[in-house]
Amino acid sequence: MTEFFKGIPQIRYEGPTSDTDFAFRHYNPDEVVAGKRMEDHLRFAVAYWHSFAWPGGDPFGGQTFERPWFGDTMALAKLKADVAFEMFDILQAPFFCFHDADVRPEGADFAENTRNLEEITDYLAAKMEGSKTKLLWGTANLFSHRRFMAGAATNPDPEVFAWSAATVKTCMDATHRLGGQNYVLWGGREGYETLLNTDLTREAEQAGRFLSMVVDYKHKIGFQGAILIEPKPQEPSKHQYDYDVATVYGFLKRFGLENEVKVNIEQGHAILAGHSFEHELALAASLGIFGSIDMNRNDYQSGWDTDQFPDSVPEMARAYYEVLRAGGFTTGGTNFDAKIRRQSLEPEDLILAHVGAMDVCARALKAAAALLENGGLEAARAARYAGWDRPENRAMLHSDLATIEARVRAEGINPEPRSGRQERLENLWNRFV
Amino acid sequence: MTEFFKGIPQIRYEGPTSDTDFAFRHYNPDEVVAGKRMEDHLRFAVAYWHSFAWPGGDPFGGQTFERPWFGDTMALAKLKADVAFEMFDILQAPFFCFHDADVRPEGADFAENTRNLEEITDYLAAKMEGSKTKLLWGTANLFSHRRFMAGAATNPDPEVFAWSAATVKTCMDATHRLGGQNYVLWGGREGYETLLNTDLTREAEQAGRFLSMVVDYKHKIGFQGAILIEPKPQEPSKHQYDYDVATVYGFLKRFGLENEVKVNIEQGHAILAGHSFEHELALAASLGIFGSIDMNRNDYQSGWDTDQFPDSVPEMARAYYEVLRAGGFTTGGTNFDAKIRRQSLEPEDLILAHVGAMDVCARALKAAAALLENGGLEAARAARYAGWDRPENRAMLHSDLATIEARVRAEGINPEPRSGRQERLENLWNRFV
Amino acid sequence: MTEFFKGIPQIRYEGPTSDTDFAFRHYNPDEVVAGKRMEDHLRFAVAYWHSFAWPGGDPFGGQTFERPWFGDTMALAKLKADVAFEMFDILQAPFFCFHDADVRPEGADFAENTRNLEEITDYLAAKMEGSKTKLLWGTANLFSHRRFMAGAATNPDPEVFAWSAATVKTCMDATHRLGGQNYVLWGGREGYETLLNTDLTREAEQAGRFLSMVVDYKHKIGFQGAILIEPKPQEPSKHQYDYDVATVYGFLKRFGLENEVKVNIEQGHAILAGHSFEHELALAASLGIFGSIDMNRNDYQSGWDTDQFPDSVPEMARAYYEVLRAGGFTTGGTNFDAKIRRQSLEPEDLILAHVGAMDVCARALKAAAALLENGGLEAARAARYAGWDRPENRAMLHSDLATIEARVRAEGINPEPRSGRQERLENLWNRFV
Amino acid sequence: MTEFFKGIPQIRYEGPTSDTDFAFRHYNPDEVVAGKRMEDHLRFAVAYWHSFAWPGGDPFGGQTFERPWFGDTMALAKLKADVAFEMFDILQAPFFCFHDADVRPEGADFAENTRNLEEITDYLAAKMEGSKTKLLWGTANLFSHRRFMAGAATNPDPEVFAWSAATVKTCMDATHRLGGQNYVLWGGREGYETLLNTDLTREAEQAGRFLSMVVDYKHKIGFQGAILIEPKPQEPSKHQYDYDVATVYGFLKRFGLENEVKVNIEQGHAILAGHSFEHELALAASLGIFGSIDMNRNDYQSGWDTDQFPDSVPEMARAYYEVLRAGGFTTGGTNFDAKIRRQSLEPEDLILAHVGAMDVCARALKAAAALLENGGLEAARAARYAGWDRPENRAMLHSDLATIEARVRAEGINPEPRSGRQERLENLWNRFV
Repeated sequence: MTEFFKGIPQIRYEGPTSDTDFAFRHYNPDEVVAGKRMEDHLRFAVAYWHSFAWPGGDPFGGQTFERPWFGDTMALAKLKADVAFEMFDILQAPFFCFHDADVRPEGADFAENTRNLEEITDYLAAKMEGSKTKLLWGTANLFSHRRFMAGAATNPDPEVFAWSAATVKTCMDATHRLGGQNYVLWGGREGYETLLNTDLTREAEQAGRFLSMVVDYKHKIGFQGAILIEPKPQEPSKHQYDYDVATVYGFLKRFGLENEVKVNIEQGHAILAGHSFEHELALAASLGIFGSIDMNRNDYQSGWDTDQFPDSVPEMARAYYEVLRAGGFTTGGTNFDAKIRRQSLEPEDLILAHVGAMDVCARALKAAAALLENGGLEAARAARYAGWDRPENRAMLHSDLATIEARVRAEGINPEPRSGRQERLENLWNRFV
Repeated sequence: MTEFFKGIPQIRYEGPTSDTDFAFRHYNPDEVVAGKRMEDHLRFAVAYWHSFAWPGGDPFGGQTFERPWFGDTMALAKLKADVAFEMFDILQAPFFCFHDADVRPEGADFAENTRNLEEITDYLAAKMEGSKTKLLWGTANLFSHRRFMAGAATNPDPEVFAWSAATVKTCMDATHRLGGQNYVLWGGREGYETLLNTDLTREAEQAGRFLSMVVDYKHKIGFQGAILIEPKPQEPSKHQYDYDVATVYGFLKRFGLENEVKVNIEQGHAILAGHSFEHELALAASLGIFGSIDMNRNDYQSGWDTDQFPDSVPEMARAYYEVLRAGGFTTGGTNFDAKIRRQSLEPEDLILAHVGAMDVCARALKAAAALLENGGLEAARAARYAGWDRPENRAMLHSDLATIEARVRAEGINPEPRSGRQERLENLWNRFV
Repeated sequence: MTEFFKGIPQIRYEGPTSDTDFAFRHYNPDEVVAGKRMEDHLRFAVAYWHSFAWPGGDPFGGQTFERPWFGDTMALAKLKADVAFEMFDILQAPFFCFHDADVRPEGADFAENTRNLEEITDYLAAKMEGSKTKLLWGTANLFSHRRFMAGAATNPDPEVFAWSAATVKTCMDATHRLGGQNYVLWGGREGYETLLNTDLTREAEQAGRFLSMVVDYKHKIGFQGAILIEPKPQEPSKHQYDYDVATVYGFLKRFGLENEVKVNIEQGHAILAGHSFEHELALAASLGIFGSIDMNRNDYQSGWDTDQFPDSVPEMARAYYEVLRAGGFTTGGTNFDAKIRRQSLEPEDLILAHVGAMDVCARALKAAAALLENGGLEAARAARYAGWDRPENRAMLHSDLATIEARVRAEGINPEPRSGRQERLENLWNRFV
Repeated sequence: MTEFFKGIPQIRYEGPTSDTDFAFRHYNPDEVVAGKRMEDHLRFAVAYWHSFAWPGGDPFGGQTFERPWFGDTMALAKLKADVAFEMFDILQAPFFCFHDADVRPEGADFAENTRNLEEITDYLAAKMEGSKTKLLWGTANLFSHRRFMAGAATNPDPEVFAWSAATVKTCMDATHRLGGQNYVLWGGREGYETLLNTDLTREAEQAGRFLSMVVDYKHKIGFQGAILIEPKPQEPSKHQYDYDVATVYGFLKRFGLENEVKVNIEQGHAILAGHSFEHELALAASLGIFGSIDMNRNDYQSGWDTDQFPDSVPEMARAYYEVLRAGGFTTGGTNFDAKIRRQSLEPEDLILAHVGAMDVCARALKAAAALLENGGLEAARAARYAGWDRPENRAMLHSDLATIEARVRAEGINPEPRSGRQERLENLWNRFV
């Protein structure tokens, strides 16, 4: 045991009346909700980067956290892993996620980076043997190092494309070796700072081919997990190509990848793109590309990623309602891509942030499941479209304008609007959350 | 002649030193820019609705304009048309655009609406015979009447779908009869107010089938113009399905319509979606779906459509640069989907708004053409990607991750970033605008 | 009884397990929370305008509601009042609010407007005698009519200033006559569309003098209620002078009115100004100008006033926590300046919207009161600043830079940051909401 | 001479037809505009921090710039100063600005920080003797170091208040010694991350007393420059107390400092607060607190400070028009608080960014001066309010509601709206820009 979390107990379910900070009040892993254990529904994952690699900086200030493992050596990387697995154990977290750059020291060149990654992959594999915590997904950090400043797959310099492709290969290998259930691509630099120096056509082709090669490699190595793209509209780039779910869908269709790749949807990214989180979830499900979620909220009044832990049960209930309607997670899960505030200096802040978030999600899941079981909302939705289930109406979808015009004239169709009953449905929601 | 514009002369090009408000200082229709007359480049259109049908209301106040043609009779509709063509003549506008609801009185049912539309179509056809002004595009207003409050093609009520299909047929007929060069669909109610009562899957299918029937009907009647979708992210709906160019592209691909339908891009809609206008133009061109533009700016600080006339030459130059790079307009043009401010009560305000906007566009076009002819920007762009023109790099796009990794190792690839030179390119721009 | 709400019962408290839509599950007027009846805490008011005067229009569509009282006659105004009081009774609403333009037909001139207002004031007074519903506040609509398009008090035309002053006098008279507990000014047109034609200095002086006369008139007639300004940053104007609480405070200080005028804070206006609702409430309390609230939320993703009924208990709990910390309402209350969606056509939609909102507020109040009673949050807040309670630190506030520098050197002050414990406090919140 | 800018010539005015990147096309320091040399109008300043201290990082990536002076020693600080003065000379910049943390290495404690600052102040003083470049303003960086994470003057910990006060004293001393013409305070951490742990009342009192002591110290040491507050609404904090000009005005009034302190207005901060830049300038002038400007634009579509160099002549013309209307700068100037993009790696990028920006400002100044001299806009503005110059109207401002009502009745006042002529005024603008 390291010293870092000394004195902090393993978190256990104690129910709503518990009077300690260090307990779950709502998250009870073994409790069955809608036919499945809560743990199996929610599939919580801890994000290595925010919890263990982020120093607390922001654009106007530097490091606030002082962690004993900060530094760029293999020994410190292993200490970081030790602490990480202690936290996974304290939280009884079923999953974690990582980028290559989170877990290994940066090397001088590709070969050293790869050696470092392989060494730490072995170390992580050994730790996982003694742990219940599995790997939800791995990914490559193709955005922090200065070499990526103008893009990874979409870089004007083919050498960066090459470096990126090679790096993704090594990260897919590591993910595969660790039994990862998904592999994620977030293209923070796949976009532009200014259109003036950008060739959209070339960059789209590069991105499309890159992703196709990722899919090919997955099949080649027999990786059974899902390939996920994480949409984000902007930040750090002025414009990012994977803007939102609809944009990613168009991109996948363009390159024939819509059956091979799904999306990892983040609340904060959804709202930066002008959407509600539940919109992005529902749309992805409707398009058949729903994969996983990054559960970290943005502040609605701040125009950048604040990556906060979720704190609103009603908002999360909307999200889990869509997840449940979509059939629940298969390979995906609930990754806390969230960072404690840079003023939250204490080790216990890191624990409590996760505890509170897990409880919020658990309450939300239970509320969503109860509403779905109640059936009132789905019945109202179905009733609203019931006219379309009549054959003569259904047939219009395969008719033509002139025929429909004739019908309107013949039947004197003159539609009368009907109430959308929004407030009534909102009231119904509030019976459950 | 009506009395409305009495005393306002036809606007003519007088050059930058003119000292009257009622002259073009920069727009000189016959002046050749980049091998084409300015009129043929810009293809200006006046929007019937804002200029002649809008009463000056906003969500907190009612009508401010007092126009002699306001009212819902055929006689007033004809007076409105008379005034409209007088304005087209004063401005020497080569085109106009209209919705059915702009030009005809609302009837009691579909049959009366159609009769009214046919009668006014005849009237407009007669006026066009004596005018140089042609029809850029027609469209159906499927959003103002209460029957459309929950959507047109995507309405949960199939009767509204039927009404909408029949109406679009009549509007396509009218557009065809008047020699329209395009037919536009803007889906202001094709979206939702709340996800709680919405079935995204059904509504997408309805929209896809509806659009397919529009395309079929175009071919059936031999309409040679383009079918254009106008993207907008929200307003009036909370979410609109034709969110932006990328979203529309995905929708077209999904329904196999990407070679049949293009986009009509509006500056205000682009920025509501979080994009620059030039982004949307460049993206549409890159995807092969660029059609036409609605040239009305939004206020960057107001979160709703302000539909103002353009006033910034540098911004418009960015837009026309992308239009010129895309090869210029074919069937499309520059429609002023712009309204004078509700405090701009005078007839001359209507004229001056267009005069100023046409001059801004003319200056912007000339600047864009000069920069394109200069070639400096395009040379810089090409140079930035030049590495991709080398065969060994080009080949990577058809390689695989493992092969590329081997290359990175073998060649010791360790890319060094290169300056994006954004400020230098911005300075280059400012030599031309 | 009119026919409008036929079949809808008076709403009563039935507790959380009730299975009807037409019951309060949480709002129990007589239940004592933190030493006061819930009704006396919350002081709910129905807004006449949204509920009875708004036709359901938006910038892209017209009327959707068909109400038997729509029209501009005194008889219809009385029918409207009859229905309004029936709704107040159904909801057992303790208060209502109105603008002059909501309750009386528009006249041809000032004299007729005033006669109409006086007549309907008598009618309302009579209805109030048979009702438990009192007047929370009255106000003048100085924004809808075209005469106000360029401002009321701040109009460049002194005649509009005169009209506005005279109208406010009549509305204050009516409010006084009806026992109103506050008089509100919302300056939707007190701002500008463009700086180009605006004289900020003149307009500020006009606004300052106007408000001073309102205060003088209040004292002259012996009106005991509070004068409230309602801040809003923009919409309908591009910029509104009463931007937010801090701006209004500066304006009051400038004209020496900070002890005479308070603020009526609306959630939707707060977030349009870039603030959280609770920020505006806490700031107003801290500045000593907290008055009342308009409880209608905006959609966070729509850049205009959506004026929706509240649906989020956690958000409302933040608001009521600040209200309770400020000592609760005195003359103020919770006005639902909220409109049902334009698709909510049914009379019952109007009732259910209020029922749901009242329940949300009740839950929020109870949660806030429980947390305040718990004391944990306030204890944490006080502990964070405890250092300032020590005399040597307190003294620094009345010291000087050189003396403080000497202290830093002498004592070797080198401060060590302490955790802000944000996540822990958020978890504490979530035990109560 | 250092090697850094080797090969880059001093920039000279060559006129619009110059064909080199390294020339001013519009900024001609000695050219007289509106009775004053351009250099004396514009008073350009280079910001030390962005140009010499910023490493090119963003929230998702680290350092991109590799500068020979990066590091934390006094020798490197002096090398940095050498390069800085070389750049000032290349640009013939009349001014520069700095924070303490930009120019000196960070020490272990307050005493070492102060010694370092004094040593580098001597070094800068010596360099300034051989340079035409003067100090526009100095300031203290009270936001980057972790000790400031919860505020400087408004920190819950009085030790941080003490450290901050002592540091500001040393920075005012340095600014005074170097002949600075202003002293600026930007409160990036004077705000909060969450209201939950914040005492607004205490923090406002701390801020008010702190600023009062700054003013006292200015007088004590005989500093003749202006004290300036730089408003910003948020970022890095969720909410910052110096939100915008109106908020700062209210704060100054509250603490009786409105005649002692002015504002330094930044375009990017203005638009983050929901205002146009020209609004903030015009408002500050109207309130008598206009001081200086930070001329760096934000991207309108990015919700955070992008701090880009200005590139739009029309936008800058609006700004300089307000500056000229306010009588021009006295102690203030045009500080480029702007950073080259993190992809702009080359030394020449740093030069060209300033050259382009200076030219944009020069064109804007000339356009604004010409329009002001033309007088058309001011005449239109005055005409719009002319009614207020009549004695009977002017008298209303000192009347009372009842008297005004009597006048409205007696004179039958029924105001008719008049056109605001916005488009006409926009056209007028476009004759000059």
